[in-house]
Amino acid sequence: MTTPPVVRGTVPDADVVLAPLPDLLPGLRETYEDLHRHPELSYQETRTAALVAERLAAAGYVVHSGVGGTGVAGVLGNGVGPCVLLRADMDALPVTEDTGLPYASTVRTTTADGIESGVMHACGHDVHVTALLGAADVLARGRSAWSGTLVVVFQPAEELGTGAQAMVDDGLYDLVPRPDIVLGQHVAPVAAGLLGLHAGPAFAGADVLDIRLVGRGGHGSRPEATVDPVVMAASTVLKLQTIVSREVAAGDAAVVTVGRLQAGTKDNIIPDEASLGVNVRSFGEAVRSRVLGAIERIVHAEAAAAGAPEPPRITPGESFPPLVNDPAETERTRAALAARFGAERVIDPGAVSGSEDVSVLATAAGVPLVYWLLGGWDPAAFFAAEQAGTTDRDIPSNHSPRFAPVPHPTLETGVTALVVATLDRLEAPDGA
Amino acid sequence: MTTPPVVRGTVPDADVVLAPLPDLLPGLRETYEDLHRHPELSYQETRTAALVAERLAAAGYVVHSGVGGTGVAGVLGNGVGPCVLLRADMDALPVTEDTGLPYASTVRTTTADGIESGVMHACGHDVHVTALLGAADVLARGRSAWSGTLVVVFQPAEELGTGAQAMVDDGLYDLVPRPDIVLGQHVAPVAAGLLGLHAGPAFAGADVLDIRLVGRGGHGSRPEATVDPVVMAASTVLKLQTIVSREVAAGDAAVVTVGRLQAGTKDNIIPDEASLGVNVRSFGEAVRSRVLGAIERIVHAEAAAAGAPEPPRITPGESFPPLVNDPAETERTRAALAARFGAERVIDPGAVSGSEDVSVLATAAGVPLVYWLLGGWDPAAFFAAEQAGTTDRDIPSNHSPRFAPVPHPTLETGVTALVVATLDRLEAPDGA
Amino acid sequence: MTTPPVVRGTVPDADVVLAPLPDLLPGLRETYEDLHRHPELSYQETRTAALVAERLAAAGYVVHSGVGGTGVAGVLGNGVGPCVLLRADMDALPVTEDTGLPYASTVRTTTADGIESGVMHACGHDVHVTALLGAADVLARGRSAWSGTLVVVFQPAEELGTGAQAMVDDGLYDLVPRPDIVLGQHVAPVAAGLLGLHAGPAFAGADVLDIRLVGRGGHGSRPEATVDPVVMAASTVLKLQTIVSREVAAGDAAVVTVGRLQAGTKDNIIPDEASLGVNVRSFGEAVRSRVLGAIERIVHAEAAAAGAPEPPRITPGESFPPLVNDPAETERTRAALAARFGAERVIDPGAVSGSEDVSVLATAAGVPLVYWLLGGWDPAAFFAAEQAGTTDRDIPSNHSPRFAPVPHPTLETGVTALVVATLDRLEAPDGA
Amino acid sequence: MTTPPVVRGTVPDADVVLAPLPDLLPGLRETYEDLHRHPELSYQETRTAALVAERLAAAGYVVHSGVGGTGVAGVLGNGVGPCVLLRADMDALPVTEDTGLPYASTVRTTTADGIESGVMHACGHDVHVTALLGAADVLARGRSAWSGTLVVVFQPAEELGTGAQAMVDDGLYDLVPRPDIVLGQHVAPVAAGLLGLHAGPAFAGADVLDIRLVGRGGHGSRPEATVDPVVMAASTVLKLQTIVSREVAAGDAAVVTVGRLQAGTKDNIIPDEASLGVNVRSFGEAVRSRVLGAIERIVHAEAAAAGAPEPPRITPGESFPPLVNDPAETERTRAALAARFGAERVIDPGAVSGSEDVSVLATAAGVPLVYWLLGGWDPAAFFAAEQAGTTDRDIPSNHSPRFAPVPHPTLETGVTALVVATLDRLEAPDGA
Repeated sequence: MTTPPVVRGTVPDADVVLAPLPDLLPGLRETYEDLHRHPELSYQETRTAALVAERLAAAGYVVHSGVGGTGVAGVLGNGVGPCVLLRADMDALPVTEDTGLPYASTVRTTTADGIESGVMHACGHDVHVTALLGAADVLARGRSAWSGTLVVVFQPAEELGTGAQAMVDDGLYDLVPRPDIVLGQHVAPVAAGLLGLHAGPAFAGADVLDIRLVGRGGHGSRPEATVDPVVMAASTVLKLQTIVSREVAAGDAAVVTVGRLQAGTKDNIIPDEASLGVNVRSFGEAVRSRVLGAIERIVHAEAAAAGAPEPPRITPGESFPPLVNDPAETERTRAALAARFGAERVIDPGAVSGSEDVSVLATAAGVPLVYWLLGGWDPAAFFAAEQAGTTDRDIPSNHSPRFAPVPHPTLETGVTALVVATLDRLEAPDGA
Repeated sequence: MTTPPVVRGTVPDADVVLAPLPDLLPGLRETYEDLHRHPELSYQETRTAALVAERLAAAGYVVHSGVGGTGVAGVLGNGVGPCVLLRADMDALPVTEDTGLPYASTVRTTTADGIESGVMHACGHDVHVTALLGAADVLARGRSAWSGTLVVVFQPAEELGTGAQAMVDDGLYDLVPRPDIVLGQHVAPVAAGLLGLHAGPAFAGADVLDIRLVGRGGHGSRPEATVDPVVMAASTVLKLQTIVSREVAAGDAAVVTVGRLQAGTKDNIIPDEASLGVNVRSFGEAVRSRVLGAIERIVHAEAAAAGAPEPPRITPGESFPPLVNDPAETERTRAALAARFGAERVIDPGAVSGSEDVSVLATAAGVPLVYWLLGGWDPAAFFAAEQAGTTDRDIPSNHSPRFAPVPHPTLETGVTALVVATLDRLEAPDGA
Repeated sequence: MTTPPVVRGTVPDADVVLAPLPDLLPGLRETYEDLHRHPELSYQETRTAALVAERLAAAGYVVHSGVGGTGVAGVLGNGVGPCVLLRADMDALPVTEDTGLPYASTVRTTTADGIESGVMHACGHDVHVTALLGAADVLARGRSAWSGTLVVVFQPAEELGTGAQAMVDDGLYDLVPRPDIVLGQHVAPVAAGLLGLHAGPAFAGADVLDIRLVGRGGHGSRPEATVDPVVMAASTVLKLQTIVSREVAAGDAAVVTVGRLQAGTKDNIIPDEASLGVNVRSFGEAVRSRVLGAIERIVHAEAAAAGAPEPPRITPGESFPPLVNDPAETERTRAALAARFGAERVIDPGAVSGSEDVSVLATAAGVPLVYWLLGGWDPAAFFAAEQAGTTDRDIPSNHSPRFAPVPHPTLETGVTALVVATLDRLEAPDGA
Repeated sequence: MTTPPVVRGTVPDADVVLAPLPDLLPGLRETYEDLHRHPELSYQETRTAALVAERLAAAGYVVHSGVGGTGVAGVLGNGVGPCVLLRADMDALPVTEDTGLPYASTVRTTTADGIESGVMHACGHDVHVTALLGAADVLARGRSAWSGTLVVVFQPAEELGTGAQAMVDDGLYDLVPRPDIVLGQHVAPVAAGLLGLHAGPAFAGADVLDIRLVGRGGHGSRPEATVDPVVMAASTVLKLQTIVSREVAAGDAAVVTVGRLQAGTKDNIIPDEASLGVNVRSFGEAVRSRVLGAIERIVHAEAAAAGAPEPPRITPGESFPPLVNDPAETERTRAALAARFGAERVIDPGAVSGSEDVSVLATAAGVPLVYWLLGGWDPAAFFAAEQAGTTDRDIPSNHSPRFAPVPHPTLETGVTALVVATLDRLEAPDGA
């Protein structure tokens, strides 16, 4: 999956391309706050997509909308040279915002499981969209400084792990040129101003399971006439903890999270069923298989222990492969970023347990991927928490109702990182 | 609370009063199916109340509507003599019906906790309303056969344990005469045609608790940065099982049910909170205190075990006292019913773990209560299950999505029991 | 099982028989302290049996030793009249005494499961032996006051539930006359001076299960290479709590106790197996069957959940039937005791969850049983705790390391109760 | 901790030193079987120590016995040159052997906690002792081939993590020369013939906790009068699973094992206390602190949840630091071993979760450590299991009752590895 060694031409001058950025930042910040205020769930990103399409068209890109549902792709052909694909994801999450920000979301939804919830950009995809719009803009404005082709992809439904595949299945690579490399970034609870690159397996694979535990409902005062699915669910959740604690070696890694547990409507009615949403992270097939096998074994045994009238129903949902950064290309991008930002601002965060479907775009094209973390946290607060050993407690993680990247210097850093990494792949125009 | 011994006059002739019942039964069955098709949650029983008010007025009762919200009371003064209060409850439950009946409910609701659910008469209050309408009708038609005053009360919100008190607080006993006795019945998973009376404590007291367990949300792949309320809730539910298993003596009785457990919206988001609806049954204050104390102790300790950032919030909800049937009056009613139905059809079911707020009407009036169970199950199926030892599995209990009393002979038995027990308290008119 | 109505002759004069008791009490107290200091486990009661045999022989009884292992039976024929069998049990328990008494036990043992423990009369069988020796003595001294036959049985291994059967199987009723009634008593955490009789089912049935959970051992640092039986056992114990909390109706009663849980020898070695000792109490066959079935279902499912390499091994141990006091005979004995002690000292404690194999002696003889509780607690402390609602906490129950009946007035009351209840069944001699 | 770069002289000729090994192997195998048959627990290794001392003396070593209790050190001064310390540990474990080997142990013990158990070399220290005796022997026989000083240390009580420190505290480095490097090996479930070296942190740190959960005992039929420590212990064990599953990041590693859980003596006695032996593995202080803190938090909260009359008692036991192999010296030894065995037989197993106190000997001397894994498993069986993905199930791990290294080629490989790694550090004699 590595590219052949190339005879490198002159790298385009990033200073020229980035010159207008300071004047554009206030507008980007407005865009960011607007997106944050209007989060849209997976495959419902119509407002976001319309905004993206309009901005790309205005910047001179050929725009393809409705790719894979609500996805948008823009192409800027600019002479001979390599083709670079930059990707951002657009969807938000069913989380009720609790940031206290003036531009906090008040959007509400009812999930497919009938749960009422707020909707929130709790994973920073609004940062991703804004930074890529900024990068697309300055790269278009500065097109005299580089030669090649730029493809920008705004993907739906990353949170479901299906959006990238949906765009590919819908003919993305018939609409846009096949790139030489795929680049992208994800905002993370790291000090703003920092970038994090890890070569090799960098993000975990993820599997989603929907589990229905079937009991037999009845009156809350007569449990003996029921099979109580609430107790069955509770015991199942506790037993699932033993997978990571007892069945995964210290040298391996996995995460098993029950993020959703729903049973019953009223205290004095024992319901018929309980429903669990389970998320599994792993970095390799052996551990993945063992964990998925253990979940199935435990869930069935818990139903048997409870005397359930029917076996549980386990429905596999999304499945993300691990994200693997091409080692050689990652080192090349690290060097380019370090040259711009200083080596101390380009850290190696190790493999993270988050998952991403961006690798689908690279794999489908048969090209390497380089994907990095973009620090989003107020550095003073972040380093103070790190010093005090309270990072986990004080720095809200992605998906938290309090997830709130600071726009400055996050947006500026995000745009600059995309531009620098892209120009490193493009060519200076003849005579530049 | 017992009434003084009375010199009994002649008991009115029930045969006379019940003569029109066979002709009325088809209409009562239509009413029953109509009510079953249109269940209404607590304090939303407007359609039911309107139907009740119209029928009572047509039968000649003075009608008071809107008592305690949606309650209806009717009064039929009919000469000198005692006053008997008959009570039915009107509300349905947030249960999604699964009976397959042609007149099954398709009504839907979203609960205050944001859970979508069907609405269903899963506790048979439609039977209670229909039977009391039938009894009110024949007693009015046959008023020449008795002397005294009849009060019929159709109560809202029994399921919340607050409807009877709401009617009393709203001035019920300023609107209707204070009765000499309160009578009523509850349909139960017992063979239709049977009646069940138990003297003394007959229904359990109930307490409802809403419990919010506060964790700290975040990304499903980074549990170490969260305090997982799903695991906290699961462990709490399991630990609550130890109250009945370890803290209540074999000679005492209590039930602790978590009928509602809700946490999270999506598999890969660890939520901030989990919510539990807990229902407690007990028959005496010592056990009740110990159980409620143990719940509080356990819930707080589970939060401490999890390292919760905030203590849990335990909000007491409804609280039903135990229902105590006046011993002497119960024996008197048992004798009257046995004389009509045969002694073998009037069983003693013992104390049941269900709860009822009907006793509030008696206590507020300072008079005795007699409340009985009305069998609602197909006798063939019921006795076969009893024979096979599968009653608990095959006979759906109250609050089950499959709770389905058979209209025949349940309605006929219910009307007859109310009429017979009432006439036993009234007087024959002079010269009768 | 009731005896035919009898034409009662004159009841022997208890005052005459009990006259020497005050002078004998200091010696009885010495005997009690000696027995307490020298507890012997089930079927090892050789020292106790030797002491009993010697005292009975000295009092004029025909003595049969070694009946059913270590059991002793004494017979005193004294003319025409009924035959009464009085029973005491002799065995102690593997409990490490923590009473602080000057005559506390320091005896040690290693159980069959390899557990080191103290040995203690933690169930008061030393009281039973002493009181019966006292009663046998005064009844023999006062034999001129009564006519009939007395059989006194000192039984081994009540704690295993097999000692009474062992004596019967070893030919007890070939050695001693078949009695007309079996009487006995058990010291209990009730105020000393009180007696407790309950007609009908008075003590629970008990079943004992030995459960081996088979995992696969290994190094404590590599759980992934093992199947951890400690976690399997822990989960099983918690799941067993749901039987009583969810599968036994509020109106029924059962107890499921895991009194022994043993797994492993060292923190860093995951063992191959865990061993549980489970004790079940119930009052009827339906509940008993459901509970035993649930245990089997849960234990197998827990092994399946853990991925156990072998199914668990469940070995049934002792099984006690419920103890049923003959209703008519119980009322007769209650009257006799009330006449002696005053009615307020003869209470009805209801059914208790303890178990007893004394009923085997009555059933094998086809005669009725009357068995009562003998209060053993300092009345001041007991009533104060009852007043404060702290009985459960402050009054050590049987089997507690702090179980310590007060010798006075417990021994005196115990002897007197046995004598009075016995004389009530015997006849006054001709001319008395 | 790295040694300064050295001008290397000629390495001694290992072929010469190892020449007698084939003839010595049958005797070594006898020694191994003899040691295996006679395992001795920590600080009780008197028979082993006597055998070691006799063999070392016979081979010409100056022997120091009784160092740090039962430890033995031998010194062979052999001219100018570096000093190398080779270490083996001698103690066995309270595990009941289940290997079926003809030389299986039948030794029994009763632990300090009163548990009866077999005693077994379940961690292969018998291999370590045998291989080091073999290496000491051939190095002594071949002393003409090298120059320098050899120190061989046979350490007690590695399993307690205190034996190395005990020898240091008892003046080991006053008795023997301070070495330039410490070398050693541990047999592991890896194919025999293979060696495993990992530079940097190679073995986890370990902490041991003894936890006493205090309840209040009583009769098994009256749990309401007790605080059941068996249920408390079960819930604690399950809750401890959440530490690794929820509080340790996927990128970090920890193990929390409850290897010993003991409560109660008999099914119908609820005991006063339960006792847990907990073992914790971690690779860095941050994770270690969080895990130990979580254990304390959970254990106290579980006692609070149970309403325990006293707080639990947590007693810290052994604490091993992580074992860190000096990176440069490890690579040097890897090269030496690869030159002898072929590179494909010297694998990098990564960090393992086992713990070792050998580093105490290096740290106390202020010199580097190189410690490797010695494969002990039948290669055919091992590779077949690896192929089938059943390694965890089919290859017994250390501390398993079925832990059984194959003597051939394990002993030969072990002796050779020690000799080669040692000679690599010594000098060839002048003129060699």
